[in-house]
Amino acid sequence: MKAICMTDTSGPQGLKLLERAQGPLGPEEVLVEVKASALNRADLLQTRGLYPAPFGVPADIPGLEFAGKVLHTGERTQRFQPGDRVMGLIGGGAWAERLAVHEAELLPIPSHLSFAEAAAIPEAFMTAFDAMVLQGGLGRFGRLLIHAIGSGVGTAGLQIAKAMDCSVAGTSRTADKLEKAKALGLDVGVLVEEKPAKFANKLKAEWPGGAEVVLELVGGHYVAESILSMAPGGRLLLVGLLAGASAELPLGAVLTKKVQLIGTTLRSRPLAEKILLARAFSNSVLPLFEKKMLWPVVAKTCAFSEVATALSEISKNDFFGKIVLEW
Amino acid sequence: MKAICMTDTSGPQGLKLLERAQGPLGPEEVLVEVKASALNRADLLQTRGLYPAPFGVPADIPGLEFAGKVLHTGERTQRFQPGDRVMGLIGGGAWAERLAVHEAELLPIPSHLSFAEAAAIPEAFMTAFDAMVLQGGLGRFGRLLIHAIGSGVGTAGLQIAKAMDCSVAGTSRTADKLEKAKALGLDVGVLVEEKPAKFANKLKAEWPGGAEVVLELVGGHYVAESILSMAPGGRLLLVGLLAGASAELPLGAVLTKKVQLIGTTLRSRPLAEKILLARAFSNSVLPLFEKKMLWPVVAKTCAFSEVATALSEISKNDFFGKIVLEW
Repeated sequence: MKAICMTDTSGPQGLKLLERAQGPLGPEEVLVEVKASALNRADLLQTRGLYPAPFGVPADIPGLEFAGKVLHTGERTQRFQPGDRVMGLIGGGAWAERLAVHEAELLPIPSHLSFAEAAAIPEAFMTAFDAMVLQGGLGRFGRLLIHAIGSGVGTAGLQIAKAMDCSVAGTSRTADKLEKAKALGLDVGVLVEEKPAKFANKLKAEWPGGAEVVLELVGGHYVAESILSMAPGGRLLLVGLLAGASAELPLGAVLTKKVQLIGTTLRSRPLAEKILLARAFSNSVLPLFEKKMLWPVVAKTCAFSEVATALSEISKNDFFGKIVLEW
Repeated sequence: MKAICMTDTSGPQGLKLLERAQGPLGPEEVLVEVKASALNRADLLQTRGLYPAPFGVPADIPGLEFAGKVLHTGERTQRFQPGDRVMGLIGGGAWAERLAVHEAELLPIPSHLSFAEAAAIPEAFMTAFDAMVLQGGLGRFGRLLIHAIGSGVGTAGLQIAKAMDCSVAGTSRTADKLEKAKALGLDVGVLVEEKPAKFANKLKAEWPGGAEVVLELVGGHYVAESILSMAPGGRLLLVGLLAGASAELPLGAVLTKKVQLIGTTLRSRPLAEKILLARAFSNSVLPLFEKKMLWPVVAKTCAFSEVATALSEISKNDFFGKIVLEW
């Protein structure tokens, strides 16, 4: 099979399309013919040697999500048949023509979506759902603050929260992204112009009670401002660190407001936890796609052969939603 | 009745013993004749005007805990009779001869303990239990790190954790306090000599897997070192901020280790939450006093008339356990 392989840790330019042997299929696994995947910032880190694949995942084939078709099923599987359209979030190796995945990690593709659209779902929507709802305890009619509202996870979190009748505030450094997010239901858009970022006062003017849950995709000084933006008892889910992996934080506000800061990643979780997430997502979020209350946000689609260029441009931040790769 | 009253916000020297009218007794309240109370750092802040009493509590009478005897019971009470020995944690007003307390907040005093000993229990043991066990999820045989191990909350947390067969590491800036804590069961004592504090490397040498729960009573730079000392999935309970209300934190470690930082205070909680804590404490911790597996740690006992001097010396940190006040 063909796969996009890291030939070194020089960054995207080290990626090459190579012929690779397909690994063995475990008895509880399903062999998937990958039709599409998507880019994540984690891929960029991985190509630079900064985010190695976890144990059990091909070390040199990036790719955290996929949409495709079932080719074969292992002998102890029962949920899928050859030809079924499936998607999923995995620890790596998705940038290949074929992929063996535990059947309990697979999700059916909503019937009205293409493979390219489906490939924009797993990482963004599962990360947002797991962080905001399962860990952050976001409830119906809650107040949610999302940073980098135009990102894949940001646009996914916004849509999930609006489907729960929540009020959603979002930050961006680009006015155009705030406008696009408003079309997806964003209630309060905060344009961040200062460096370091300032938004707590603007947000408190809109929401005197503060945000109950913060989907923190930016990190750095944003975390300090987020704490000041939070309601007593609020939860901040630390998912991304684009703006810095270290920050001066107002611990006094953490204590007196009794807020929780919760670090989270999906990639390094054991299989059992990933299966539980896939099940919860399947029960609570997939039906919202079928009802057309949620839509994958595809910024653009590229061929896998263009992956190096697309990935090297990801840090420009000039796109809204996900960049999808197709074979 | 007599009470220790704040006549201004100048600090301990503003405290005066005055005659005060006793408030009305609610139908679900019990009138307690206070025999003893204890000092907390929060009292020092309150006398300086930095930690005002919550709504419904006398604004000018400090005192967060008490031990005494039931004088009268309100008409809708059922748990206590006049003469019963009771103790409790309240939002303020304990430095008075009499006190009206909701009956569900009251705890019976273990039969073998004096009032002075009992007065050293509520704040220290309830804070530690609530933070470590109820919020931090400390389980039997867990690994717990406690800062300021010689403090009231520190010595209480240590004893509760040892009664749960946990391994406990503790920090102090005083070698003598570490020795005294070892007599209470401390497994790993870490003397902190540097400023800013350094202890993560020493602790990781003892516990390569890291601490599962951190009882963070010091704050400031200790929080950063604590994060580096933690196991993946660990929980840090931020209870105190003696070393600073702001700190530069390693957010990268928070994210990749998926740790949780949880701010907590008891004083500002609504009555219902305080009642639930009293019930959980009564079920799970009080029996350990009866079994003589836990002991209040009384550093010294003073008369209420000496409160100003005792409170002004509290920041010297040269005592182990609690300073108790008696009428």
